[in-house]
This record gives sequence, C-alpha cells and structure tokens, in this order.
Amino acid sequence: MSEQTRMAAEIAEQPVALRATLEALLPRREEIVAAFVGRRHVVFSARGSSDNAGIYGRYLLETHAQVPSGLLAPSVATHYRSRLDLSDTLVVSVSQSGRTAEIVQAQEWARASGAATIAVTNDAASPLAVAADLALTTVAGTELAVPATKSYLTQTAAMTVIGLALAPDPDLESRLADVADAVEAQLSNAGRLDPVVDLLAGPQQRIVTGRGLLMGTALETALKLEETCGRPVRGYSYADLRHGPISVVGDGITAVLVAAADGPLRAPMIELADDLRRRGATTVAVGGNASFAAACDVSTGTITTTERLAPLVAIVPMQMVIERVARRLGLDPDKPAGLSKVTRTDATVASGPR
Amino acid sequence: MSEQTRMAAEIAEQPVALRATLEALLPRREEIVAAFVGRRHVVFSARGSSDNAGIYGRYLLETHAQVPSGLLAPSVATHYRSRLDLSDTLVVSVSQSGRTAEIVQAQEWARASGAATIAVTNDAASPLAVAADLALTTVAGTELAVPATKSYLTQTAAMTVIGLALAPDPDLESRLADVADAVEAQLSNAGRLDPVVDLLAGPQQRIVTGRGLLMGTALETALKLEETCGRPVRGYSYADLRHGPISVVGDGITAVLVAAADGPLRAPMIELADDLRRRGATTVAVGGNASFAAACDVSTGTITTTERLAPLVAIVPMQMVIERVARRLGLDPDKPAGLSKVTRTDATVASGPR
Repeated sequence: MSEQTRMAAEIAEQPVALRATLEALLPRREEIVAAFVGRRHVVFSARGSSDNAGIYGRYLLETHAQVPSGLLAPSVATHYRSRLDLSDTLVVSVSQSGRTAEIVQAQEWARASGAATIAVTNDAASPLAVAADLALTTVAGTELAVPATKSYLTQTAAMTVIGLALAPDPDLESRLADVADAVEAQLSNAGRLDPVVDLLAGPQQRIVTGRGLLMGTALETALKLEETCGRPVRGYSYADLRHGPISVVGDGITAVLVAAADGPLRAPMIELADDLRRRGATTVAVGGNASFAAACDVSTGTITTTERLAPLVAIVPMQMVIERVARRLGLDPDKPAGLSKVTRTDATVASGPR
Repeated sequence: MSEQTRMAAEIAEQPVALRATLEALLPRREEIVAAFVGRRHVVFSARGSSDNAGIYGRYLLETHAQVPSGLLAPSVATHYRSRLDLSDTLVVSVSQSGRTAEIVQAQEWARASGAATIAVTNDAASPLAVAADLALTTVAGTELAVPATKSYLTQTAAMTVIGLALAPDPDLESRLADVADAVEAQLSNAGRLDPVVDLLAGPQQRIVTGRGLLMGTALETALKLEETCGRPVRGYSYADLRHGPISVVGDGITAVLVAAADGPLRAPMIELADDLRRRGATTVAVGGNASFAAACDVSTGTITTTERLAPLVAIVPMQMVIERVARRLGLDPDKPAGLSKVTRTDATVASGPR
C-alpha cells in the first residue's frame, strides 16, 4: 500500500465521493430550478477537466432537458470585456478549486451582464462559490494528485443533477442510483486493462475520439493521457475526424474510441471503429457494448450504463490505465512535470476595457 | 507555371475572390439585419475549415456586435433530434459546397425549431443555400484543390459582413476596404517564408495556438497542416494550453503562434511566445507586430491589419507555407490522401427520433 500513488487512491475513492455528492446535490434541485426561472439558455464556463465536465453538461441539457446550451469563450469576458445582454442566460461555472482567476472573473462579468450564476466547485468557501447565486459543492474530499479524477467525476455528477433538475425523469433518477455500483465494478476490473496499458505505454502516437454525450469523456481521456504521460494527444469529435483528419490515421496510430452501449451514436461509433482499423490504426474500445468491443483491437470492458449517465462511469477505466501507463513510463502520476493544482491561465488579465 | 499546383493558384486568387465577395455581400447587410430581427442569439453550424470560419464569426459577433453567440453541436440536431426552442436564435450555417449532409440536415432541424437561418456557401444553387431564409454566396469561384483556401478566406469575409451588418462601424468598414491589399502584400512576401518552410518540413511534432478573434485562424492552420501534410497537429487555445498541456511542450516541439498586432491579447501572446521558447520549443510567429515576431524564433512577417479583420489576412502566409511543405515532403497539396472535396461526416444518419 505504501507504493500506491495518490492518483490511484483517489481513483479508488470515487464510489464514495460519487455517492456523497449525489446525496448532497440531489436535494438541491428546487434551488437549481429557481436559479433558471425566467432564463432560456445555459452556458458553461470552465477550463481543462472542468471544461470536459461542462461539455457533458451541455449535451445533457440539450438532449435530455431540451435547453439550448453552449460553452463560454472566457476571453470574451476577461480580455474583450464585451457587454452582452445575458438576462436570458444561466451561466454554470465549473472549477474544482473555485479559484481559477479567469473563471472567477468570467463569473463576475456574467453577473454584471445579467446572467444567473451557478458555481460547481469542490470548496464551498472558494471565491467562485461565494460569489455565485447558487453554489453546488461536490463532495470529492481533498484531492492531492494533480490530475483531476474524483473531482472530475463528481463534477459530472453535478451536471447530471442540473439536468435532472431542469427535466425531472424518475427512470433516469433511479438509474443514477446504480452508477456508483457501476464505478465499483470498473474498479474491480483492473486485470482486464493489462493489454490496454501495454499498448498505450508504447511509442505509437495516440488520438482519442467520441461524440455527443461521450464527447467530454473522450476529451478528458485525451487531456489526461497528454498531461499525465507528457505527450500531445489530439482529441477529436467523431464527426470532425471523419470530416478530414481521418486521412492522417493509419499504421502507427493508436485510436482510443469512447462510446456508450445505447443511444443514436452506438452504431456510428462501431462503424468508425471498423473504418479506423481498416486504415491500419490500433483501436481501443472504452465503454460500449460487446459489438463495439469486438470491433476494436482491445477493450477496457463493456459498460451497460445508459448513454445519458455513461460519462460518470466510462472515464474510470481510462483513469486506471493512465495512472499505470505513467508509472510504466517512469513518470510520477501525482505530479506531472510543469503542472500545478490551482491552474493559472493568464500571466496578466486586462484590467480595463479593450 | 505548368508546375504550379491548384492550391498555389487558388491561394493567389484570393485578393480577387475577396474583393468580389465583399462587393457581393456588403450590399446585403439590410437583409442580414432583417433575418436577425426579433432574435437575441447567433449559433454557427459547420465542420472543418467552415467551422474555423464560424469560430471567427462567433468571436466577432460577441466582441464587436455584442451579440451572444456560440457553436452548434450538430449531433444534437442530426442524431439526438432534440426539440429545442430556437425562436430567439439565428443559425448561420457555413459550408463551401452547401452539400455537407450533416449541415443541411442541421439547418432543416434549426428551421423546424424556430430559428431564422442564414447559409454561407460558395454555391447559390446548393441545398443549404436554397433552403435558408437568407443565402449569402461567397464569390470564391471554383475551388479544385481539396484544401480550402479561397473558399475559407471568403467565408471569413462573410463573417465580417454579418458582424458589420449587426453592428455598423464606418471605421471598421473603411479598414475592410484595405484587406485585399494586405492579402496581396502577403502573397508578394514568399521569400520571407523560406525559414518557416524549412522548419515545418522537418520531423518535429507541431502544435498551433492562438486566442480570441485569431483562435479560428490558429485552428485552421492546425487543420491544414494536419490534412495537407498527413500528420496529426494539435490546435490549442492559448488559455487551454496554459491550463495544463503546456507541460508537454519542450525540446522537439515546434509551436506555431497566431496573433494580431493590436487588441487585448497582443501582450499575452508575446508572453506565451517567451514562455514556450524558454521551455525549449521552436516558435513560429504568424501575424502580429515586430515585438511578437522578435519573441519567436522565426516569423512569417508582421501583419498590421487590426485584430477584428486580421483573420482575413493572417491565414495567407501559412497557406503558402503549407503548400510548400507538402511539396517538400513529396505529397500532392491538391489531393491529400483520403480526403474528398464534398465532405461526409456520417456513414448513416438516424432517420427517426432517438
């Protein structure tokens, strides 16, 4: 146990963190509804892993809650200081620390622009949480490893709660109660990951692709592979990949595909797996059903959790893989070179209008 | 001349295409205003190079016209078939051919969802143009090379016209009249590009970064490098790079930085150039002023065009570089392996509701 990394320990704590976060946030759905009253749009504001949680939030709100949603371009707030009328908009800021200066400033700007604000943080005393109309605090506990794992997973749970608040759905809610068990099942599945670890520890260039509700999971997988293992990794939307860059996928590329076991993108993702393999890529299935796993060279195991909740489960096997790949490469998963826990995106932020 | 590629010829045709497009579209500003009447939001719908033009459109509308804007997630339309209320939204679809099935379907869905629609295409007879409330047709002429050059540049000009329609600005309009001359100046500047061609034809891994109004130019540069030269290239927002992945930038990485000579991101981009160079990256300045060029190892030359119009000029030197790099690598710039002119993003599109 003394050999275990913080990252491995925090990955293992996720079922507890997830249950605690859902227990804390599900009772707050009426407050979320109240924050949205009179608004028609939701915009997510975040960077890095938190942004990837927000991308799931965006798809969930548009596909489940039928609320037009999007992603903030923070420089519009922090550098251009545009005067947008956001009186019809709820801005959801996501930051583990609640202290990323850019996101705190963007929230101040959003409030001044007339937006309602919700802050999803892991620290109720943080500036982002304190300044928001409504603070939703994840119960991830202290996260010491630099790569976000349990904080990311609990942020995705907060997105699910916002989706359920804006569009109640007893069936989805009852399935949500099973998600922590599904995460536990992934955690007990470490042996199955050996071939994937062997593959991703190799010298091949890696890309990651997904689409729709799993797009954020694909981008989070790419970001973690990149940051933890010290090599650039391109994350593509399925459709952007097909639109052109698929031409660069061939021998010597490892393509990680992230999918769900159901939903309208299940069949297209299987076709994409076939296509990438035909082009000579080595393919890794993350999530999805047995047909998807069979269409790829290796699989982290099937995941039956329905697509709308699959992002709460499908990131877990790749967290485990990435922690092991980093160690295999002789790197410290807990402290990737050049990264710090409270992120800083700007050396200077403009203090006046453009 | 018989040795000249189609791509090189089409790059050279851009001043003519740009002048013709502006002459055709500037008189249509009242129609654009009419299409937006009663709407509060603009959403851009596109893929690939057209999406990169749309990203410029999004920043221009948010920073110049003060209109909240965003980017459509096409799968929400084509696969999830969400029933969003878009009665407060103008959807601007961008497609050179006007025949990308996904974008045509997304526009149908947007109309059915209550949105007003503008189609920016290079073919007034295309399905996308015919079905839109307002068709804005670029005057790029026939583009035969697969990599979009003059069609992309004229799409960005269409974005500028939409911005000027929604927020008239005589000063910006008069500067726009000079942009074709600025493109010509870039075209006559080929000799200065030799060191950049030498560098990008080498074996180093490449990344591209930019931010704000120049973000779309950075992503278009990354996409063209990737598609034309057959290697994955990661395009990063300045801030996303600083948020974490900058840790993977070091010796053996070539970083292409795209900036403008003025605006609130000028100083941060110079700081980023210093930082990347300190980490051991070889840096290429695209656009920007003399200080920005001096902060990088090599430069494609300064560009004084103001930031809001700089995307219409700053892509040109990199188009010239990329065409030459492809030839240097023994590739055909006109027909990158595996790409076709009318793009196809889906093997199958769901025909019914989820």
